[in-house]
Amino acid sequence: MLSKKQIQSVRALHQKKFRDQSATFIVEGPKLLDDLFKSEFEIKQIFATADWAASHAAIGGRFPEIIKVSPAELSRISLLKTPNQVLAVVASPHYDIHDFTMPDDFVLVLDGISDPGNLGTILRTADWFGMSRIICSSDCVELFNPKVVQAAMGSVFRVQVYYTDLVAFFDRYAEIPVYGTFLKGNNIYREVFPSQGFLVVGSESHGVSTALAEKITKALHIPADRSQAESLNASVAAALCCSEIKRDYLKSC
Amino acid sequence: MLSKKQIQSVRALHQKKFRDQSATFIVEGPKLLDDLFKSEFEIKQIFATADWAASHAAIGGRFPEIIKVSPAELSRISLLKTPNQVLAVVASPHYDIHDFTMPDDFVLVLDGISDPGNLGTILRTADWFGMSRIICSSDCVELFNPKVVQAAMGSVFRVQVYYTDLVAFFDRYAEIPVYGTFLKGNNIYREVFPSQGFLVVGSESHGVSTALAEKITKALHIPADRSQAESLNASVAAALCCSEIKRDYLKSC
Repeated sequence: MLSKKQIQSVRALHQKKFRDQSATFIVEGPKLLDDLFKSEFEIKQIFATADWAASHAAIGGRFPEIIKVSPAELSRISLLKTPNQVLAVVASPHYDIHDFTMPDDFVLVLDGISDPGNLGTILRTADWFGMSRIICSSDCVELFNPKVVQAAMGSVFRVQVYYTDLVAFFDRYAEIPVYGTFLKGNNIYREVFPSQGFLVVGSESHGVSTALAEKITKALHIPADRSQAESLNASVAAALCCSEIKRDYLKSC
Repeated sequence: MLSKKQIQSVRALHQKKFRDQSATFIVEGPKLLDDLFKSEFEIKQIFATADWAASHAAIGGRFPEIIKVSPAELSRISLLKTPNQVLAVVASPHYDIHDFTMPDDFVLVLDGISDPGNLGTILRTADWFGMSRIICSSDCVELFNPKVVQAAMGSVFRVQVYYTDLVAFFDRYAEIPVYGTFLKGNNIYREVFPSQGFLVVGSESHGVSTALAEKITKALHIPADRSQAESLNASVAAALCCSEIKRDYLKSC
Protein backbone atom coordinates (compact mmCIF):
# COMPACT_ATOMS: atom_id res chain seq x y z
CA MET A 1 0.00 0.00 0.00
CA LEU A 2 1.19 3.51 -0.75
CA SER A 3 1.99 5.75 2.19
CA LYS A 4 0.42 9.18 2.50
CA LYS A 5 3.85 10.65 1.89
CA GLN A 6 4.33 8.70 -1.34
CA ILE A 7 0.93 9.83 -2.61
CA GLN A 8 1.68 13.44 -1.69
CA SER A 9 5.09 13.44 -3.35
CA VAL A 10 3.63 12.24 -6.68
CA ARG A 11 0.57 14.47 -6.48
CA ALA A 12 2.87 17.46 -5.92
CA LEU A 13 4.14 16.89 -9.47
CA HIS A 14 0.72 17.82 -10.81
CA GLN A 15 1.92 21.37 -10.16
CA LYS A 16 4.61 23.18 -12.13
CA LYS A 17 6.18 24.63 -8.97
CA PHE A 18 7.02 21.20 -7.58
CA ARG A 19 8.07 19.84 -10.98
CA ASP A 20 10.56 22.70 -11.15
CA GLN A 21 11.77 22.23 -7.57
CA SER A 22 12.33 18.50 -7.88
CA ALA A 23 13.32 18.49 -11.58
CA THR A 24 11.02 15.54 -12.14
CA PHE A 25 7.78 15.01 -14.07
CA ILE A 26 5.09 12.38 -14.60
CA VAL A 27 4.77 9.96 -17.53
CA GLU A 28 1.66 7.76 -17.74
CA GLY A 29 0.25 4.82 -19.66
CA PRO A 30 1.79 1.69 -21.24
CA LYS A 31 2.40 3.30 -24.66
CA LEU A 32 4.36 6.25 -23.27
CA LEU A 33 6.25 3.98 -20.89
CA ASP A 34 7.39 1.83 -23.83
CA ASP A 35 8.86 4.93 -25.46
CA LEU A 36 10.34 6.03 -22.14
CA PHE A 37 12.18 2.71 -21.75
CA LYS A 38 13.77 3.22 -25.18
CA SER A 39 15.03 6.67 -24.18
CA GLU A 40 17.95 7.77 -22.01
CA PHE A 41 15.64 9.52 -19.55
CA GLU A 42 16.29 8.60 -15.93
CA ILE A 43 13.29 6.92 -14.30
CA LYS A 44 13.03 7.60 -10.56
CA GLN A 45 9.92 5.58 -9.68
CA ILE A 46 7.44 3.26 -11.41
CA PHE A 47 3.97 2.71 -9.94
CA ALA A 48 1.93 0.01 -11.70
CA THR A 49 -1.05 -2.26 -11.32
CA ALA A 50 -0.44 -5.99 -10.84
CA ASP A 51 -1.23 -6.82 -14.49
CA TRP A 52 1.24 -4.34 -15.93
CA ALA A 53 3.87 -5.34 -13.36
CA ALA A 54 3.43 -9.03 -14.25
CA SER A 55 3.91 -8.37 -17.96
CA HIS A 56 7.02 -6.25 -17.24
CA ALA A 57 8.66 -8.52 -14.67
CA ALA A 58 11.75 -8.75 -16.87
CA ILE A 59 12.63 -5.06 -16.76
CA GLY A 60 15.29 -4.27 -14.25
CA GLY A 61 18.87 -3.24 -14.83
CA ARG A 62 18.93 0.56 -14.87
CA PHE A 63 15.21 0.77 -14.04
CA PRO A 64 13.88 1.05 -10.48
CA GLU A 65 11.81 -1.70 -8.91
CA ILE A 66 8.11 -1.53 -9.76
CA ILE A 67 5.93 -0.33 -6.88
CA LYS A 68 2.65 -2.21 -7.16
CA VAL A 69 -0.52 -0.18 -6.64
CA SER A 70 -4.24 -0.88 -6.70
CA PRO A 71 -6.37 0.83 -9.38
CA ALA A 72 -7.75 3.07 -6.59
CA GLU A 73 -4.23 4.07 -5.51
CA LEU A 74 -3.23 4.72 -9.12
CA SER A 75 -6.18 7.03 -9.58
CA ARG A 76 -5.07 9.02 -6.51
CA ILE A 77 -1.67 9.82 -8.02
CA SER A 78 -2.71 9.94 -11.70
CA LEU A 79 -3.37 13.04 -13.78
CA LEU A 80 -5.63 11.17 -16.20
CA LYS A 81 -9.41 10.95 -16.03
CA THR A 82 -9.01 7.25 -16.78
CA PRO A 83 -5.74 6.14 -15.14
CA ASN A 84 -3.92 3.69 -17.34
CA GLN A 85 -2.01 0.87 -15.59
CA VAL A 86 1.29 2.61 -14.97
CA LEU A 87 2.78 5.94 -13.87
CA ALA A 88 6.46 6.85 -13.77
CA VAL A 89 8.28 9.71 -12.09
CA VAL A 90 11.09 10.78 -14.41
CA ALA A 91 14.03 13.18 -14.07
CA SER A 92 13.53 16.26 -16.27
CA PRO A 93 16.54 16.81 -18.52
CA HIS A 94 17.77 20.36 -18.72
CA TYR A 95 18.51 21.44 -22.26
CA ASP A 96 21.00 24.29 -21.85
CA ILE A 97 20.89 26.80 -24.71
CA HIS A 98 24.69 27.09 -24.51
CA ASP A 99 24.91 23.44 -25.59
CA PHE A 100 22.72 24.04 -28.66
CA THR A 101 24.48 23.40 -31.94
CA MET A 102 22.94 24.25 -35.29
CA PRO A 103 22.21 21.09 -37.32
CA ASP A 104 22.31 20.99 -41.13
CA ASP A 105 18.53 21.03 -41.05
CA PHE A 106 15.65 23.29 -40.06
CA VAL A 107 15.08 24.20 -36.43
CA LEU A 108 11.60 25.17 -35.20
CA VAL A 109 11.39 28.30 -33.08
CA LEU A 110 8.24 28.86 -31.00
CA ASP A 111 7.34 32.37 -29.90
CA GLY A 112 4.90 32.38 -26.98
CA ILE A 113 3.06 29.10 -27.58
CA SER A 114 0.87 28.86 -24.48
CA ASP A 115 -1.45 25.93 -25.16
CA PRO A 116 0.07 22.67 -23.90
CA GLY A 117 -1.81 20.61 -26.52
CA ASN A 118 -0.27 22.77 -29.24
CA LEU A 119 3.27 22.44 -27.88
CA GLY A 120 2.87 18.67 -27.57
CA THR A 121 1.46 18.36 -31.08
CA ILE A 122 4.28 20.51 -32.47
CA LEU A 123 6.87 18.25 -30.81
CA ARG A 124 5.22 15.18 -32.34
CA THR A 125 5.13 16.83 -35.78
CA ALA A 126 8.74 18.06 -35.59
CA ASP A 127 9.84 14.55 -34.63
CA TRP A 128 7.91 13.12 -37.63
CA PHE A 129 9.69 15.51 -39.98
CA GLY A 130 13.11 14.79 -38.49
CA MET A 131 13.54 18.15 -36.78
CA SER A 132 14.95 17.09 -33.45
CA ARG A 133 15.65 20.48 -31.90
CA ILE A 134 13.16 23.19 -30.93
CA ILE A 135 13.85 26.64 -29.50
CA CYS A 136 11.11 28.13 -27.31
CA SER A 137 10.76 31.69 -26.08
CA SER A 138 10.92 31.89 -22.29
CA ASP A 139 7.17 32.51 -22.09
CA CYS A 140 6.17 29.30 -23.89
CA VAL A 141 4.30 26.71 -21.84
CA GLU A 142 6.49 24.34 -19.80
CA LEU A 143 7.79 21.26 -21.65
CA PHE A 144 6.91 18.87 -18.81
CA ASN A 145 3.34 20.07 -18.35
CA PRO A 146 1.33 16.80 -18.32
CA LYS A 147 -0.79 17.87 -21.30
CA VAL A 148 2.35 18.57 -23.33
CA VAL A 149 3.74 15.14 -22.46
CA GLN A 150 0.46 13.39 -23.42
CA ALA A 151 0.04 15.30 -26.71
CA ALA A 152 3.70 14.83 -27.70
CA MET A 153 3.47 11.07 -27.26
CA GLY A 154 6.96 9.55 -27.27
CA SER A 155 8.36 12.58 -29.08
CA VAL A 156 8.92 14.29 -25.73
CA PHE A 157 11.80 11.81 -25.24
CA ARG A 158 13.31 12.41 -28.68
CA VAL A 159 13.11 16.14 -29.35
CA GLN A 160 15.42 18.55 -27.50
CA VAL A 161 13.61 21.69 -26.41
CA TYR A 162 15.59 24.78 -25.39
CA TYR A 163 14.07 27.83 -23.67
CA THR A 164 15.73 31.19 -24.18
CA ASP A 165 15.37 34.85 -25.13
CA LEU A 166 14.78 34.58 -28.87
CA VAL A 167 15.99 38.03 -29.93
CA ALA A 168 19.37 37.48 -28.28
CA PHE A 169 19.45 33.94 -29.68
CA PHE A 170 19.07 35.08 -33.29
CA ASP A 171 21.91 37.56 -32.86
CA ARG A 172 24.21 34.52 -32.62
CA TYR A 173 22.94 33.13 -35.94
CA ALA A 174 22.81 36.19 -38.16
CA GLU A 175 23.97 34.27 -41.25
CA ILE A 176 21.20 31.65 -41.20
CA PRO A 177 17.83 32.38 -42.88
CA VAL A 178 14.88 32.87 -40.52
CA TYR A 179 11.44 32.07 -41.92
CA GLY A 180 8.23 33.08 -40.20
CA THR A 181 4.52 32.69 -40.94
CA PHE A 182 2.40 35.81 -41.22
CA LEU A 183 -0.97 36.80 -42.65
CA LYS A 184 0.95 38.41 -45.52
CA GLY A 185 4.15 37.13 -47.09
CA ASN A 186 5.48 34.87 -49.84
CA ASN A 187 3.15 32.06 -50.85
CA ILE A 188 4.58 29.08 -48.97
CA TYR A 189 3.76 26.72 -51.85
CA ARG A 190 6.08 28.66 -54.20
CA GLU A 191 9.00 28.83 -51.78
CA VAL A 192 12.21 26.89 -52.42
CA PHE A 193 13.74 26.13 -49.03
CA PRO A 194 17.46 25.76 -48.32
CA SER A 195 18.67 22.76 -46.31
CA GLN A 196 19.34 24.84 -43.21
CA GLY A 197 17.23 27.49 -41.53
CA PHE A 198 14.95 28.54 -38.71
CA LEU A 199 11.17 28.47 -38.88
CA VAL A 200 9.42 30.77 -36.40
CA VAL A 201 5.85 29.97 -35.35
CA GLY A 202 4.00 32.73 -33.49
CA SER A 203 1.68 32.50 -30.50
CA GLU A 204 -1.96 31.41 -30.71
CA SER A 205 -3.33 34.86 -30.00
CA HIS A 206 -0.75 37.38 -31.18
CA GLY A 207 1.35 35.63 -33.83
CA VAL A 208 5.04 36.53 -34.00
CA SER A 209 5.98 39.30 -31.51
CA THR A 210 7.07 42.69 -32.85
CA ALA A 211 10.59 42.43 -31.42
CA LEU A 212 11.11 39.08 -33.08
CA ALA A 213 9.53 40.05 -36.39
CA GLU A 214 12.63 42.17 -37.11
CA LYS A 215 14.80 39.06 -37.00
CA ILE A 216 12.76 37.29 -39.66
CA THR A 217 14.44 37.39 -43.04
CA LYS A 218 11.65 35.73 -45.03
CA ALA A 219 7.92 36.16 -44.33
CA LEU A 220 5.76 33.27 -45.47
CA HIS A 221 2.02 33.07 -45.93
CA ILE A 222 -0.20 29.99 -46.15
CA PRO A 223 -2.89 30.94 -48.68
CA ALA A 224 -6.55 30.11 -47.96
CA ASP A 225 -9.18 28.90 -50.42
CA ARG A 226 -12.16 31.33 -50.40
CA SER A 227 -12.25 31.36 -46.63
CA GLN A 228 -13.54 33.70 -43.95
CA ALA A 229 -11.34 31.95 -41.40
CA GLU A 230 -8.81 34.43 -40.05
CA SER A 231 -6.05 32.03 -39.19
CA LEU A 232 -5.01 28.44 -38.67
CA ASN A 233 -4.32 26.71 -35.37
CA ALA A 234 -0.62 27.24 -34.45
CA SER A 235 0.22 23.53 -34.50
CA VAL A 236 -1.47 23.15 -37.90
CA ALA A 237 0.46 26.13 -39.32
CA ALA A 238 3.69 24.64 -37.96
CA ALA A 239 2.89 21.26 -39.55
CA LEU A 240 2.09 22.77 -42.97
CA CYS A 241 5.43 24.63 -42.90
CA CYS A 242 7.41 21.54 -41.85
CA SER A 243 5.73 19.58 -44.63
CA GLU A 244 6.64 22.20 -47.26
CA ILE A 245 10.23 22.43 -46.00
CA LYS A 246 10.71 18.67 -46.31
CA ARG A 247 8.40 18.12 -49.30
CA ASP A 248 10.94 17.83 -52.14
CA TYR A 249 13.00 15.35 -50.18
CA LEU A 250 10.02 13.28 -48.96
CA LYS A 251 8.42 13.28 -52.40
CA SER A 252 11.39 11.27 -53.69
CA CYS A 253 11.36 8.80 -50.78
CA MET B 1 -29.28 40.11 -11.20
CA LEU B 2 -29.64 36.62 -12.62
CA SER B 3 -32.23 34.35 -11.03
CA LYS B 4 -31.29 30.90 -9.79
CA LYS B 5 -33.38 29.47 -12.61
CA GLN B 6 -31.53 31.48 -15.26
CA ILE B 7 -28.18 30.33 -13.90
CA GLN B 8 -29.32 26.71 -13.79
CA SER B 9 -30.71 26.78 -17.32
CA VAL B 10 -27.38 28.00 -18.76
CA ARG B 11 -25.27 25.74 -16.57
CA ALA B 12 -27.32 22.76 -17.76
CA LEU B 13 -25.83 23.39 -21.22
CA HIS B 14 -22.41 22.46 -19.88
CA GLN B 15 -23.73 18.89 -20.28
CA LYS B 16 -24.36 17.13 -23.59
CA LYS B 17 -27.65 15.66 -22.35
CA PHE B 18 -29.22 19.09 -21.86
CA ARG B 19 -27.68 20.50 -25.04
CA ASP B 20 -29.38 17.66 -26.91
CA GLN B 21 -32.71 18.09 -25.10
CA SER B 22 -32.91 21.83 -25.64
CA ALA B 23 -31.11 21.89 -29.02
CA THR B 24 -29.06 24.85 -27.83
CA PHE B 25 -25.38 25.37 -27.04
CA ILE B 26 -23.05 27.97 -25.56
CA VAL B 27 -20.84 30.44 -27.44
CA GLU B 28 -18.42 32.60 -25.44
CA GLY B 29 -16.08 35.55 -25.85
CA PRO B 30 -16.14 38.71 -27.99
CA LYS B 31 -14.28 37.16 -30.94
CA LEU B 32 -16.64 34.20 -31.30
CA LEU B 33 -19.65 36.48 -30.81
CA ASP B 34 -18.49 38.67 -33.70
CA ASP B 35 -18.46 35.61 -35.95
CA LEU B 36 -21.79 34.47 -34.54
CA PHE B 37 -23.42 37.80 -35.45
CA LYS B 38 -22.24 37.37 -39.05
CA SER B 39 -23.85 33.90 -39.23
CA GLU B 40 -27.46 32.82 -39.66
CA PHE B 41 -27.42 31.00 -36.31
CA GLU B 42 -30.37 31.90 -34.08
CA ILE B 43 -29.27 33.51 -30.82
CA LYS B 44 -31.62 32.77 -27.91
CA GLN B 45 -29.97 34.76 -25.12
CA ILE B 46 -26.98 37.08 -24.66
CA PHE B 47 -25.43 37.58 -21.22
CA ALA B 48 -22.75 40.27 -21.07
CA THR B 49 -20.81 42.51 -18.74
CA ALA B 50 -21.61 46.24 -18.71
CA ASP B 51 -18.55 47.12 -20.83
CA TRP B 52 -19.37 44.69 -23.62
CA ALA B 53 -23.05 45.67 -23.50
CA ALA B 54 -22.14 49.36 -23.80
CA SER B 55 -19.97 48.76 -26.86
CA HIS B 56 -22.73 46.68 -28.47
CA ALA B 57 -25.70 48.91 -27.65
CA ALA B 58 -26.47 49.22 -31.37
CA ILE B 59 -27.16 45.54 -31.94
CA GLY B 60 -30.84 44.70 -31.94
CA GLY B 61 -33.07 43.73 -34.83
CA ARG B 62 -33.06 39.96 -34.96
CA PHE B 63 -30.90 39.67 -31.82
CA PRO B 64 -32.34 39.32 -28.32
CA GLU B 65 -31.90 42.04 -25.71
CA ILE B 66 -28.59 41.85 -23.82
CA ILE B 67 -28.95 40.59 -20.25
CA LYS B 68 -26.36 42.46 -18.19
CA VAL B 69 -24.39 40.39 -15.70
CA SER B 70 -21.61 41.07 -13.20
CA PRO B 71 -18.23 39.36 -13.73
CA ALA B 72 -19.13 37.07 -10.80
CA GLU B 73 -22.43 36.08 -12.42
CA LEU B 74 -20.72 35.50 -15.76
CA SER B 75 -18.23 33.16 -14.12
CA ARG B 76 -21.11 31.14 -12.66
CA ILE B 77 -22.58 30.39 -16.09
CA SER B 78 -19.32 30.32 -18.08
CA LEU B 79 -17.41 27.24 -19.19
CA LEU B 80 -14.11 29.12 -19.41
CA LYS B 81 -11.45 29.30 -16.70
CA THR B 82 -11.26 33.01 -17.47
CA PRO B 83 -14.77 34.14 -18.47
CA ASN B 84 -14.61 36.62 -21.28
CA GLN B 85 -17.19 39.45 -21.26
CA VAL B 86 -20.05 37.73 -23.08
CA LEU B 87 -21.87 34.39 -23.34
CA ALA B 88 -24.65 33.51 -25.78
CA VAL B 89 -27.11 30.64 -25.84
CA VAL B 90 -27.58 29.63 -29.47
CA ALA B 91 -29.96 27.25 -31.26
CA SER B 92 -28.09 24.19 -32.57
CA PRO B 93 -28.75 23.70 -36.29
CA HIS B 94 -29.51 20.15 -37.32
CA TYR B 95 -27.63 19.12 -40.45
CA ASP B 96 -29.70 16.28 -41.89
CA ILE B 97 -27.66 13.80 -43.94
CA HIS B 98 -30.58 13.54 -46.39
CA ASP B 99 -30.01 17.20 -47.27
CA PHE B 100 -26.34 16.63 -48.04
CA THR B 101 -25.37 17.33 -51.63
CA MET B 102 -21.96 16.53 -53.05
CA PRO B 103 -20.06 19.70 -53.99
CA ASP B 104 -17.54 19.88 -56.84
CA ASP B 105 -14.83 19.80 -54.20
CA PHE B 106 -13.38 17.51 -51.55
CA VAL B 107 -15.43 16.53 -48.51
CA LEU B 108 -13.72 15.53 -45.27
CA VAL B 109 -14.99 12.35 -43.61
CA LEU B 110 -14.11 11.74 -39.96
CA ASP B 111 -14.18 8.22 -38.59
CA GLY B 112 -14.38 8.13 -34.80
CA ILE B 113 -12.65 11.41 -33.94
CA SER B 114 -13.15 11.59 -30.17
CA ASP B 115 -11.01 14.50 -29.03
CA PRO B 116 -13.00 17.76 -29.10
CA GLY B 117 -9.87 19.84 -29.70
CA ASN B 118 -9.11 17.74 -32.77
CA LEU B 119 -12.62 18.07 -34.19
CA GLY B 120 -12.58 21.83 -33.64
CA THR B 121 -9.15 22.20 -35.22
CA ILE B 122 -10.25 20.09 -38.21
CA LEU B 123 -13.29 22.35 -38.72
CA ARG B 124 -11.05 25.41 -38.67
CA THR B 125 -8.63 23.83 -41.14
CA ALA B 126 -11.41 22.61 -43.48
CA ASP B 127 -12.88 26.13 -43.47
CA TRP B 128 -9.44 27.58 -44.33
CA PHE B 129 -9.12 25.25 -47.31
CA GLY B 130 -12.64 25.97 -48.56
CA MET B 131 -14.12 22.58 -47.63
CA SER B 132 -17.42 23.60 -46.13
CA ARG B 133 -18.97 20.18 -45.55
CA ILE B 134 -17.77 17.44 -43.18
CA ILE B 135 -19.24 13.98 -42.67
CA CYS B 136 -18.74 12.44 -39.20
CA SER B 137 -19.29 8.85 -38.12
CA SER B 138 -22.00 8.60 -35.46
CA ASP B 139 -19.39 7.95 -32.76
CA CYS B 140 -17.44 11.18 -33.36
CA VAL B 141 -17.47 13.74 -30.56
CA GLU B 142 -20.48 16.10 -30.50
CA LEU B 143 -20.19 19.21 -32.69
CA PHE B 144 -21.49 21.57 -29.98
CA ASN B 145 -19.20 20.31 -27.23
CA PRO B 146 -17.76 23.56 -25.79
CA LYS B 147 -14.17 22.52 -26.54
CA VAL B 148 -15.08 21.87 -30.18
CA VAL B 149 -16.70 25.30 -30.42
CA GLN B 150 -13.66 27.04 -28.87
CA ALA B 151 -11.11 25.18 -31.02
CA ALA B 152 -13.11 25.68 -34.23
CA MET B 153 -13.27 29.46 -33.70
CA GLY B 154 -15.84 30.99 -36.05
CA SER B 155 -15.59 28.00 -38.39
CA VAL B 156 -18.28 26.25 -36.33
CA PHE B 157 -20.73 28.74 -37.90
CA ARG B 158 -19.50 28.20 -41.46
CA VAL B 159 -18.86 24.46 -41.88
CA GLN B 160 -21.80 22.05 -42.12
CA VAL B 161 -21.20 18.88 -40.15
CA TYR B 162 -23.34 15.79 -40.81
CA TYR B 163 -23.39 12.70 -38.56
CA THR B 164 -24.24 9.35 -40.12
CA ASP B 165 -23.31 5.71 -40.62
CA LEU B 166 -20.31 6.03 -42.94
CA VAL B 167 -20.46 2.60 -44.60
CA ALA B 168 -24.07 3.16 -45.70
CA PHE B 169 -23.18 6.73 -46.72
CA PHE B 170 -20.43 5.65 -49.12
CA ASP B 171 -22.79 3.17 -50.78
CA ARG B 172 -24.65 6.22 -52.12
CA TYR B 173 -21.47 7.66 -53.67
CA ALA B 174 -19.84 4.63 -55.24
CA GLU B 175 -18.59 6.60 -58.27
CA ILE B 176 -16.62 9.21 -56.29
CA PRO B 177 -13.00 8.47 -55.23
CA VAL B 178 -12.45 7.93 -51.51
CA TYR B 179 -8.97 8.74 -50.18
CA GLY B 180 -7.80 7.68 -46.74
CA THR B 181 -4.58 8.04 -44.76
CA PHE B 182 -2.82 4.91 -43.55
CA LEU B 183 0.63 3.93 -42.32
CA LYS B 184 1.19 2.37 -45.75
CA GLY B 185 -0.08 3.70 -49.08
CA ASN B 186 0.80 6.01 -51.95
CA ASN B 187 3.19 8.83 -51.06
CA ILE B 188 0.84 11.79 -50.60
CA TYR B 189 3.39 14.19 -52.12
CA ARG B 190 3.31 12.32 -55.43
CA GLU B 191 -0.48 12.11 -55.67
CA VAL B 192 -2.40 14.09 -58.31
CA PHE B 193 -5.85 14.79 -56.86
CA PRO B 194 -9.05 15.18 -58.86
CA SER B 195 -11.33 18.15 -58.17
CA GLN B 196 -13.92 16.03 -56.39
CA GLY B 197 -13.52 13.32 -53.76
CA PHE B 198 -13.75 12.23 -50.17
CA LEU B 199 -10.88 12.28 -47.71
CA VAL B 200 -11.27 9.92 -44.74
CA VAL B 201 -9.38 10.68 -41.52
CA GLY B 202 -9.30 7.88 -38.93
CA SER B 203 -9.63 8.06 -35.18
CA GLU B 204 -6.83 9.12 -32.83
CA SER B 205 -6.29 5.64 -31.43
CA HIS B 206 -7.37 3.15 -34.10
CA GLY B 207 -7.10 4.96 -37.44
CA VAL B 208 -9.69 4.10 -40.10
CA SER B 209 -12.04 1.30 -38.95
CA THR B 210 -11.90 -2.07 -40.73
CA ALA B 211 -15.45 -1.81 -42.08
CA LEU B 212 -14.72 1.57 -43.59
CA ALA B 213 -11.30 0.64 -44.96
CA GLU B 214 -13.08 -1.44 -47.64
CA LYS B 215 -14.74 1.69 -48.98
CA ILE B 216 -11.45 3.49 -49.51
CA THR B 217 -10.38 3.45 -53.13
CA LYS B 218 -6.99 5.12 -52.65
CA ALA B 219 -4.74 4.65 -49.61
CA LEU B 220 -2.39 7.55 -48.91
CA HIS B 221 0.65 7.73 -46.69
CA ILE B 222 2.42 10.80 -45.30
CA PRO B 223 6.13 9.88 -45.32
CA ALA B 224 8.30 10.67 -42.30
CA ASP B 225 11.88 11.91 -42.27
CA ARG B 226 14.08 9.45 -40.28
CA SER B 227 11.58 9.35 -37.45
CA GLN B 228 10.70 6.96 -34.64
CA ALA B 229 7.33 8.70 -34.25
CA GLU B 230 4.57 6.20 -35.03
CA SER B 231 1.95 8.59 -36.26
CA LEU B 232 0.83 12.19 -36.52
CA ASN B 233 -1.94 13.88 -34.56
CA ALA B 234 -5.26 13.35 -36.41
CA SER B 235 -5.86 17.07 -36.96
CA VAL B 236 -2.32 17.48 -38.30
CA ALA B 237 -2.75 14.54 -40.69
CA ALA B 238 -6.05 16.03 -41.88
CA ALA B 239 -4.40 19.42 -42.44
CA LEU B 240 -1.48 17.98 -44.42
CA CYS B 241 -3.95 16.13 -46.69
CA CYS B 242 -6.14 19.23 -47.21
CA SER B 243 -3.02 21.21 -48.07
CA GLU B 244 -1.88 18.66 -50.65
CA ILE B 245 -5.37 18.42 -52.19
CA LYS B 246 -5.51 22.20 -52.69
CA ARG B 247 -1.81 22.78 -53.29
CA ASP B 248 -1.72 23.13 -57.07
CA TYR B 249 -4.59 25.60 -57.00
CA LEU B 250 -3.26 27.61 -54.05
CA LYS B 251 0.27 27.67 -55.48
CA SER B 252 -1.04 29.73 -58.41
CA CYS B 253 -3.02 32.15 -56.21
